[in-house]
Amino acid sequence: MTNDSALRDRAQRVIPGGMFGHLAAARQAPGYPQFFERAEGCRTWDVNGRSYIDFMCSWGPIVLGHHDPDVDAAVRAQDALGDCMDGPSPRLVELAELLVAQIPHADWALFAKNGTDATTSCVTIARAATGRRKVLVARGAYHGAAPWCTPSQVGVTSEDRLHLILYDYNDPASLAEAVALAGDDLAAIVVSAIRHDIGKRHELPTVEFARAARAAYDATGAALIVDDVRAGFRLHEGGSWELVGVRPDLAAYSKAIANGQPLAAITGNDRFRDAASRVFLTGSFWAGAVPMAAAIATLTKLHAVDGIGHMAAMGQRFRDGLNAQARRYGVPLEQSGPPQLPIFLFRDDPDFALGKAFCSEAVARGVLLHHNHTLFLSVAHTEADIDEALDATDGAFRAIAAGVPAR
Amino acid sequence: MTNDSALRDRAQRVIPGGMFGHLAAARQAPGYPQFFERAEGCRTWDVNGRSYIDFMCSWGPIVLGHHDPDVDAAVRAQDALGDCMDGPSPRLVELAELLVAQIPHADWALFAKNGTDATTSCVTIARAATGRRKVLVARGAYHGAAPWCTPSQVGVTSEDRLHLILYDYNDPASLAEAVALAGDDLAAIVVSAIRHDIGKRHELPTVEFARAARAAYDATGAALIVDDVRAGFRLHEGGSWELVGVRPDLAAYSKAIANGQPLAAITGNDRFRDAASRVFLTGSFWAGAVPMAAAIATLTKLHAVDGIGHMAAMGQRFRDGLNAQARRYGVPLEQSGPPQLPIFLFRDDPDFALGKAFCSEAVARGVLLHHNHTLFLSVAHTEADIDEALDATDGAFRAIAAGVPAR
Repeated sequence: MTNDSALRDRAQRVIPGGMFGHLAAARQAPGYPQFFERAEGCRTWDVNGRSYIDFMCSWGPIVLGHHDPDVDAAVRAQDALGDCMDGPSPRLVELAELLVAQIPHADWALFAKNGTDATTSCVTIARAATGRRKVLVARGAYHGAAPWCTPSQVGVTSEDRLHLILYDYNDPASLAEAVALAGDDLAAIVVSAIRHDIGKRHELPTVEFARAARAAYDATGAALIVDDVRAGFRLHEGGSWELVGVRPDLAAYSKAIANGQPLAAITGNDRFRDAASRVFLTGSFWAGAVPMAAAIATLTKLHAVDGIGHMAAMGQRFRDGLNAQARRYGVPLEQSGPPQLPIFLFRDDPDFALGKAFCSEAVARGVLLHHNHTLFLSVAHTEADIDEALDATDGAFRAIAAGVPAR
Repeated sequence: MTNDSALRDRAQRVIPGGMFGHLAAARQAPGYPQFFERAEGCRTWDVNGRSYIDFMCSWGPIVLGHHDPDVDAAVRAQDALGDCMDGPSPRLVELAELLVAQIPHADWALFAKNGTDATTSCVTIARAATGRRKVLVARGAYHGAAPWCTPSQVGVTSEDRLHLILYDYNDPASLAEAVALAGDDLAAIVVSAIRHDIGKRHELPTVEFARAARAAYDATGAALIVDDVRAGFRLHEGGSWELVGVRPDLAAYSKAIANGQPLAAITGNDRFRDAASRVFLTGSFWAGAVPMAAAIATLTKLHAVDGIGHMAAMGQRFRDGLNAQARRYGVPLEQSGPPQLPIFLFRDDPDFALGKAFCSEAVARGVLLHHNHTLFLSVAHTEADIDEALDATDGAFRAIAAGVPAR
C-alpha cells in the first residue's frame, strides 16, 4: 500500500467523503495524487515521493513559485514581529497604498481571507451603496462557495439566490435583457475577469461586452464588480480589465495576491467608499500581518521581474509545443484562454474522457495538469521546465493517440 | 505626530473609514491603539513603542501566547515543506484524527479559514441533511459576518435572513416556541457555546437549556449546532458543551485552534456525514498545511500543559484582584463568564461610558482590556503578569473612582 492510499484510507474515516471541495482527488483525472508532501519552485512532490512539474500552481495562488526567496524573507521578517495581533500592523496600510497605486480604478482597499469573502463583500457593498437588491451573474460563472454563489444546490435555499439574474458572458444583448429585468432594483453586475467556466473554452472579455457592462452603471448607478480572484495578477498588474480598457467600481482578488499565503482583497472607487465603510466586514484573521507582508513582496517582485510577461512567454512556449504534438499525433486538442491561465480541452469530448486519459498519462510522466479546470503558469517556470514538461506530454499524446478516432 | 496617528491618516485615504471590522479603533475605548508592531507571549507593542499586557489575545486566537516555541517550530517545519499546495498534506488527516479523538461528538472534521465559514457550513450541512430550511439562532448572538448572520443590516436583504427564527439563550420555553414556529421545516438550532453577546453578562448554558436544545433533535431530526468559535479550546478540550454533558451534532471552531494561524474547523457526527460529503465547501487556502501543523502543535500543547486549567487559574486570580479593587474604590464592577473568557461590565452603565473610561485608564497604564467585548486569557499569562496587570488596574480604578456616583 502506498503512502497516498494509506492516507486516503485514514481520511475516509475522519473526513466526509475522504476529502472536501475542489481538491478532492475524486474530482480529478485518475492518478492525480490526493496528498502532497512538499513543493519547491514549479515542482511538487506527492506523499509517494513522485515529483511533478506543476501547472496547477495550487489552483492559482502560487504565482512566483513555491518558496520564493523574497516572499519567504518577508514572511519570516513579519512573523518574527507578529502576525495575528490585536489590530493590524503597518503592513495593512502599506499594502492598501500599493494596491491603490497599482490598480487604476482603486481608491481604497479592504482585506479578507477567501475569494468568496471578497466577492460576497463586493455584493454587500454594492447593495449598501445602491439600496437595491438584484445582482447579475453570468451563467456558469464561478464566484465562490457561499450559499448565494455556490455551483452546488445542496443545502442551499432558493431564497439564497432569489435576487440573482443570469446573463451570458460576452453577450451584450443578454446583459441588456438582464439589466432590464432587474429594473430599478439593480445593485450590481458581477463579471469574471475572463470567462473561465469549468470545462469550457476560456475567453477574454470582448471590448464591446466590457463597455456594455460599464455603460450599465452609467445608466443605472449599479456597481460593476470584476471578480479577479482567479485571474488577478497574472494578466495585468492594474487588474485584468485594464486589458480591455474598462474599469470596474469594485473588484475582488485572492489566490495569487500573496503567493500562497491566505489573503483576499477588495478594491473600490470613491463612489463606493462610504458604503464600504458602513458594511460590517470582518474575520478573526483578516488583519493578519504575515499574508500582507507576503503580498507586498509578491506584487513588488512580480513587477520587478516582469512576472506577467514571463508567465505569458512560458505559457505560449508550452501552448506552441502542445499544439505541435497534438497535430503530430492527430489528437484534437483545443487550447484557449490567455497563455498564463490556459485551459486544455479536446474536441468532441463531452464527458472529458479523452482529457482525463491525457491528464492521467501526463501525471504518470511527472506533469500535473487538469482535464477541465483552468491551469496556471508561475514565474518559477523556466524554458527548461517547459521543455521537460513537453517531453512528458509527448509521451502522453502518444499513449492516447491510439484511442482517438481517425478524422 | 505619533506613528499611530500618522498611520491612521494614511489609512483614512486608502481604507474606507480608516479601518474595517471589529478591529477598528473607533469601536474601542479612547486610547486603544489602532496599529500594532509586534507581540510576544502575553505582551503586545503598538507602533508608538508602548507595550501592553494583553487580555484581548488578538480577540481570541492567541491561546498559548505569541511566538509559542512549539507552535513556531511546527510552523517552520511545515513551511519548509509546503503550505498551499495542489492538495492537502498529511497534516489534514492527522488534525482530523486528533479532533475526532479529542471531541466526543465528532466522527469527522472539515476545515476552512473563518469562523463564519464554519458556522455557515454547519447550517448548509444541516439543511442538506434534513431537506429543511428554518434555522434557530439566539437573539443577540454573534455567529459571523456573512449576510445570513451579520449583526449589521447594511447591504443585507431580508431574504438573507428569511429562514431565521429567534429564541432567547438559556430560555427553554422560548426555544420550544421557536421550534414550534419552525414546524416541520426545522433544519438546525444554532447555539453559542456560552452566551457571550456583546455588552451583556456572559453565561454558561444551563443544563436544562442544553438538554432542551438536544431534545429538539430527538423530536425533529434537526441538527444541534454549537458555535464554539469564540470559546473553543479554552473551556473544555472536548468542545465547550462537554461542561454541561450535552453533545451537538455539528460544531464550529476557529480562533484559538491554531494559536493565531488562520484556520477554522467543523466537526460532526455520523448522522450528518453523508450530507457533509455532498455539500460543496471549499476555498483557495482551506487545505493549507501550515495552519494545520500549527493546530496540531497547539492542541497537543494545550493538553500537555493543562492550558485550560492554567487559563482558568490566571483568569480567577485576575477576577479576584479586580473584585477587591472595585470594592475598595466603590466602583460597581460586574464580572461574568468563565474566568478564561471573561467580560467586565459596570452596573448602570448603559452606554459603557464608565467601562470605556476604565479601559482607557488601563490602556494608559499598559493593560489592554475591552469595555464591552469578551476578554481572553492565554497560557502565556503568568501570576507575575496578572499581578503586574492588577497594579495597573488599581491605578485605573483610582482614576475613575472620583467620577462614580456614591451609592
